Amino acid sequence: MLGANSYGKSGIRLVQVSRRGDRHEVQDLMVAVRLEGDFGAAHLAGDNAAVLPTDTMKNTVYAMAAAPGRSLEPIEVFALRLARHFVETHAPVSRARVEISERPWERIEAAGRPHGSAFRRPGGEARLAAATATRGGEPAIEAGVENVVILKTSRSGFAGFARDRFTTLHDTDDRLLATALRAIWSYMAPELSFAALRAGIRQTLLETFAEHESRSVQHTLYAMGEAVLERHAEVRAIRLTMPNKHHLPVDLTPLGLPNDNSIFVATEEPFGLIEATIVRNEA
Amino acid sequence: MLGANSYGKSGIRLVQVSRRGDRHEVQDLMVAVRLEGDFGAAHLAGDNAAVLPTDTMKNTVYAMAAAPGRSLEPIEVFALRLARHFVETHAPVSRARVEISERPWERIEAAGRPHGSAFRRPGGEARLAAATATRGGEPAIEAGVENVVILKTSRSGFAGFARDRFTTLHDTDDRLLATALRAIWSYMAPELSFAALRAGIRQTLLETFAEHESRSVQHTLYAMGEAVLERHAEVRAIRLTMPNKHHLPVDLTPLGLPNDNSIFVATEEPFGLIEATIVRNEA
Amino acid sequence: MLGANSYGKSGIRLVQVSRRGDRHEVQDLMVAVRLEGDFGAAHLAGDNAAVLPTDTMKNTVYAMAAAPGRSLEPIEVFALRLARHFVETHAPVSRARVEISERPWERIEAAGRPHGSAFRRPGGEARLAAATATRGGEPAIEAGVENVVILKTSRSGFAGFARDRFTTLHDTDDRLLATALRAIWSYMAPELSFAALRAGIRQTLLETFAEHESRSVQHTLYAMGEAVLERHAEVRAIRLTMPNKHHLPVDLTPLGLPNDNSIFVATEEPFGLIEATIVRNEA
Amino acid sequence: MLGANSYGKSGIRLVQVSRRGDRHEVQDLMVAVRLEGDFGAAHLAGDNAAVLPTDTMKNTVYAMAAAPGRSLEPIEVFALRLARHFVETHAPVSRARVEISERPWERIEAAGRPHGSAFRRPGGEARLAAATATRGGEPAIEAGVENVVILKTSRSGFAGFARDRFTTLHDTDDRLLATALRAIWSYMAPELSFAALRAGIRQTLLETFAEHESRSVQHTLYAMGEAVLERHAEVRAIRLTMPNKHHLPVDLTPLGLPNDNSIFVATEEPFGLIEATIVRNEA
Repeated sequence: MLGANSYGKSGIRLVQVSRRGDRHEVQDLMVAVRLEGDFGAAHLAGDNAAVLPTDTMKNTVYAMAAAPGRSLEPIEVFALRLARHFVETHAPVSRARVEISERPWERIEAAGRPHGSAFRRPGGEARLAAATATRGGEPAIEAGVENVVILKTSRSGFAGFARDRFTTLHDTDDRLLATALRAIWSYMAPELSFAALRAGIRQTLLETFAEHESRSVQHTLYAMGEAVLERHAEVRAIRLTMPNKHHLPVDLTPLGLPNDNSIFVATEEPFGLIEATIVRNEA
Repeated sequence: MLGANSYGKSGIRLVQVSRRGDRHEVQDLMVAVRLEGDFGAAHLAGDNAAVLPTDTMKNTVYAMAAAPGRSLEPIEVFALRLARHFVETHAPVSRARVEISERPWERIEAAGRPHGSAFRRPGGEARLAAATATRGGEPAIEAGVENVVILKTSRSGFAGFARDRFTTLHDTDDRLLATALRAIWSYMAPELSFAALRAGIRQTLLETFAEHESRSVQHTLYAMGEAVLERHAEVRAIRLTMPNKHHLPVDLTPLGLPNDNSIFVATEEPFGLIEATIVRNEA
Repeated sequence: MLGANSYGKSGIRLVQVSRRGDRHEVQDLMVAVRLEGDFGAAHLAGDNAAVLPTDTMKNTVYAMAAAPGRSLEPIEVFALRLARHFVETHAPVSRARVEISERPWERIEAAGRPHGSAFRRPGGEARLAAATATRGGEPAIEAGVENVVILKTSRSGFAGFARDRFTTLHDTDDRLLATALRAIWSYMAPELSFAALRAGIRQTLLETFAEHESRSVQHTLYAMGEAVLERHAEVRAIRLTMPNKHHLPVDLTPLGLPNDNSIFVATEEPFGLIEATIVRNEA
Repeated sequence: MLGANSYGKSGIRLVQVSRRGDRHEVQDLMVAVRLEGDFGAAHLAGDNAAVLPTDTMKNTVYAMAAAPGRSLEPIEVFALRLARHFVETHAPVSRARVEISERPWERIEAAGRPHGSAFRRPGGEARLAAATATRGGEPAIEAGVENVVILKTSRSGFAGFARDRFTTLHDTDDRLLATALRAIWSYMAPELSFAALRAGIRQTLLETFAEHESRSVQHTLYAMGEAVLERHAEVRAIRLTMPNKHHLPVDLTPLGLPNDNSIFVATEEPFGLIEATIVRNEA
């Protein structure tokens, strides 16, 4: 029996340039479309009458990007336009979800000022948006940031934890805390000042990480989420994923040297993984 | 308010060697442990009394691998032992999930026969297992395969699909169909002949893919899942994820050459993504 | 002043299918073309008259693959045809090098025998070939294998090494030895039975690795190269690259457990890296 | 016969923290050591007496990082100290090369100013240094940048190129030009203001890329290298590697839409690859 199922197109790469004289803007997106609906006949009988090709999804992304009037709208808005399109134009679809990941480009400084048409991609961090349109329901908008690699060299300890016969870790009141943050939050409404909100929420996350007197990853993660909910009323809930990118002090004793908590090896494996959703209290 | 949350250790790499005279066996595992439970105080108050360190989880994996009597048991069994351990020994834990990915090693042929202690890793494909132990409940066992890269050069078409104004794709009755299969299935019981079952289920998946007269990825995916449920009564449900790794015929017309459906470019982006769960009908 | 320079196209992906009735063959290649020659005007003056576009290189790969009579020739032969083409047809080119990496596909077993048109890619290992054509000179052919991940659990030690004040490593006469072998060898002549030679040389490498009483990576590497030169008179020289993929015994003492050399952690970083070329002695 | 050979340790990850009150500095390095010398006995006879273990190389990196007085010196200086150490302390070594890749960390802005001990890693770009010490010779210092992803949306064309029967590319006077620049330059002397030089050279590369009226990748590459040699007398030669990260205009005609050179798809494969060394003219 066919259970939960979906299909779509992932990895649709769109780079769009907007030009006003010598001043260009660039938007660099990766789009994924996923549809759910009445697709049983395709699975069971090989009847494709209800199946909009994933190739068409790709074409739709380019066509709607090229639509007159779209001048590099925020990714939340573009995702919502796309998600609504699939629900509104294709009857078998009950739910369309569009996810967009944006890689930022910065202007190159040349002759002392930002260049109009030359850019550098800082790399690493990505901006996320997701819109879900449901037949007969309200759309839902999420936004987020991914791969925000952050490190604090003070105000971080881990002590007083549970111990069993396999525990060899010692209490510490001064450790390096590093993570590659992924945060996804849901908005209260489908029309908001998304770009400004994203910048503000990202700044709240970074500042709280920097300032927090951390007793654990969980402790700091929760403080970060709570700060977002306190300062940004438009946010309904936020999910934070924080791998603990361990930085282990190197034992220099066998080399006849002290290590005054300054020499670390950063390891990729294994890693702690802490995840939680912080939700706004119901009134 | 703290919503859904979990923590654990990922990327625990364990290579275990079992020796009987000149005949060695190797098991190469990546283990991830995730715990859910009563961890609110850590998040809200920085109180770690309930938090078993993720470092201890790592130690536990090595310790339980070294336990007398464990001689390279199937990964489903090892996952279950680990998951039960965390629920049984640590009161705040309500649910423990252990996921294991195994990379197979084959014996090197030397002097015409399989060598006793030299191995080659074929690469690519991985075996998966997951065990979930719940306080006061029955454990659940899943198994799977990942990154099974398969291709068929006949018996695959895609026609009669829905069309809209952005559709440019043409019907075809002869295309290459390639995917990197991921399949995860759940078992009816926690004690089964896991190794034999995995081999049989994997073979069912491959054979069905090979033989199926495919009208779409969905069509073949469903046939593969259905065949597993039909032939393997121990399986409750199976989830298949099949990215469509497009192989596009190269247009040689501008070069003054025909392409008799033999020259293709394999593209990584964008890709179709088809997912479905096939569940056993209730009696 | 313009020094050494080259340009070309990399990442040209070609999948070619050859069909004889129900029996299909698949060749899956990644091709790179690099040209050297008289390209100073392009660099200094922006004059492109001598520059064959890299897009044309890509087209050429597809066109020459589609040429009548080419039915999945060995990659060494295809590389040489391509390299010669660029030197022969484009005057500014003094030297053309074509590198091909092939990913093997195996037939899926179905109904007890190899299927005619369904394949599985084992992953991991790749076959390499390179041809260099020089204006007015003899062409050179190289072949190789890459990412051959191999492990031996016996007959491997490392002892009696140099020590200084920073040395903490202990002698061992029983360690795991693992590597991801890359081997590139050069042939004596441009026309040989390349497929059979490759299979034989690869087998020599694997067998020697398996059987060798290893005192170090260097020791085994040299033995492997020497065996190739001894058994395969067509080979002029061979270069072996063997990263030491460390498998470290886990110290279980703090957990109150013994480790009888059976529990290891495989680490990715840091890694030893051993490289050497073994050349045939001049007579 | 043993030909060219070397061995060493790669992937030595060092994170070092320097603290002055509340103001911390972080240096995040990946170090590779490679030795050449009299190591024939290890290869041929399994005699390790001349072989300093690669494990010792790793220890040496940590030990020399911890040496009193080293407070986060530039990576060129650290690389040279390490390279000299191996030549000076270990007789069989004839040549030691140390390569360092540094990943920069930026301070997080909090409460309107850069935080003293919280950092964000911008990702992407890395700084490179390499020092080569030779027994009885002068050391050589190189520096570089890697993965500098840059894009220009004006002042870039490609026209008047060579054509043959497989050429389908059309002339263009307005295309997107994008690359992931890797530049390595060699210095005239082993003691220079490396940090300031690197910043200046990187800025020269970026500015020239931004301002250049590009007729090809080769044309811009050469201009960038030439500008570095002109403005930075300390540089002997520079090697630039510029993959052409193609951005192809999407053909919207089949969708009934114009594309006014604003909608692009960025492709990963295949890619052009342009490399050249620019050397200072001898006087």
